[in-house]
Amino acid sequence: MSSTVAKALTLLDHFSEEVPELGLSDLARRAGLEKATVHRMLSVMADAGLVEQRGTSRLYRLGPGVLRLARVREKVFPMSAALQPALQALVAETGETAHASLISGRALATIEVIESARASRVSLVAGQILPFHSTASGHAALAFAAPELRERVLGSALAAITPHTITDAGALRAQLAAVRQGGFAVCDQGNEEDVHGIAVPVFHGDGLAAGAIAVATPAHRMTEDLRRQIIVVLFREGAKATFAAGGAMPLPYRQAMEQTLREMGAAG
Amino acid sequence: MSSTVAKALTLLDHFSEEVPELGLSDLARRAGLEKATVHRMLSVMADAGLVEQRGTSRLYRLGPGVLRLARVREKVFPMSAALQPALQALVAETGETAHASLISGRALATIEVIESARASRVSLVAGQILPFHSTASGHAALAFAAPELRERVLGSALAAITPHTITDAGALRAQLAAVRQGGFAVCDQGNEEDVHGIAVPVFHGDGLAAGAIAVATPAHRMTEDLRRQIIVVLFREGAKATFAAGGAMPLPYRQAMEQTLREMGAAG
Repeated sequence: MSSTVAKALTLLDHFSEEVPELGLSDLARRAGLEKATVHRMLSVMADAGLVEQRGTSRLYRLGPGVLRLARVREKVFPMSAALQPALQALVAETGETAHASLISGRALATIEVIESARASRVSLVAGQILPFHSTASGHAALAFAAPELRERVLGSALAAITPHTITDAGALRAQLAAVRQGGFAVCDQGNEEDVHGIAVPVFHGDGLAAGAIAVATPAHRMTEDLRRQIIVVLFREGAKATFAAGGAMPLPYRQAMEQTLREMGAAG
Repeated sequence: MSSTVAKALTLLDHFSEEVPELGLSDLARRAGLEKATVHRMLSVMADAGLVEQRGTSRLYRLGPGVLRLARVREKVFPMSAALQPALQALVAETGETAHASLISGRALATIEVIESARASRVSLVAGQILPFHSTASGHAALAFAAPELRERVLGSALAAITPHTITDAGALRAQLAAVRQGGFAVCDQGNEEDVHGIAVPVFHGDGLAAGAIAVATPAHRMTEDLRRQIIVVLFREGAKATFAAGGAMPLPYRQAMEQTLREMGAAG
């Protein structure tokens, strides 16, 4: 039974700002499931308001039920609202594109993107599911997440998204240890050619990572100075967002942050 | 298989602003399911990010995955954003509490509430699932919804929420016909004692109701004048919200609206 519910819910992963509507055949193909099975699952999910099918195209899109759920969650545990000012500050101070993502069960979900105002900038799709192993946000979140999630990702197939993606579990494990040590994650073109990502974790009240905030820069523009500047702003805004969301930075993370700032000569 | 997925998704209905967190036993009791079954369902839904369990209390709450889904849906099909100004205008002009709800599969989900500034006012919980048969919003939405949904509600058990609730399918059918004729729905204490609701539908692009906007007034305060005033503002704001959401009012509805305005002596 669990696997049927799991498969049904996985259908939702295929909807993003880039792909807001999907036909039955297309969705079945993407999910690798029988059309008849997907149709039954979609009917049940439509009944619950999670998807809906409108107009003459018969395309499926996410349903109004998700608005109710988000409203309930955000009202009581405001996370989206806590991350918004962090992204605004990041874009204002670095001039680059900033985004926030949250650990959402087995996946990392981008929930907010603010793009740089520059003509040459990284353009990201909000609402996308990001791989943990090929993104700076994924590394930052995973390094400070519950050990079970970390081991699960390390034990799964690590696909080569670009020639730069870390595909070896041992190498990824070492990378995550380095992230824990420095308090930030850098991923140079691991998920997309010419995109350089830097990310820091945002924490829940229990001291485990809730997700990450990140700055994405065209790789050819990255310099040591810009990198240092981005890390300083990320540390400050990550701490503020954690605080605003009612979270708590664990002591080892605060120490890692201070150590990095000292090494960069930016500490106070 | 469908019934398992359906039961799992129904668990989400129990979360609202009033009940943002639930323990396993409590949720199993509310859902009328075995604890072990609910536990398995919650594990799968946690994996998909729809719920999460945090802190030492082990309570479940809605997960960050719902923020991603809402963000994707609202960005591409902005409905929440279209309804917000309507509610603001309703509260400003009538002085009473206004709310918006959307047909979400088999249910009617409140997605936004703006409360009156008066000390004596109707206080509503956003994120609640409303019954179709006992609320003005339910009547307004159902009267202009797809016939299948209407027949499904008419064919289900109509519980007496208050002594004023319509519990007879024939009477409800007649009531919905009256709503189609007048273009608005009035429900006097059908869902809560001393709460008088007036609602109008908001439409999708295909001319079927997407949901409703409504004004809820303490029943003892309702007068013919206030009722007329509320209907005029609801008609105007319902039309604007429909337009802003990319919807279309069907011709019979526009005619019903004009006829009502003429009868109330408020037409132009």
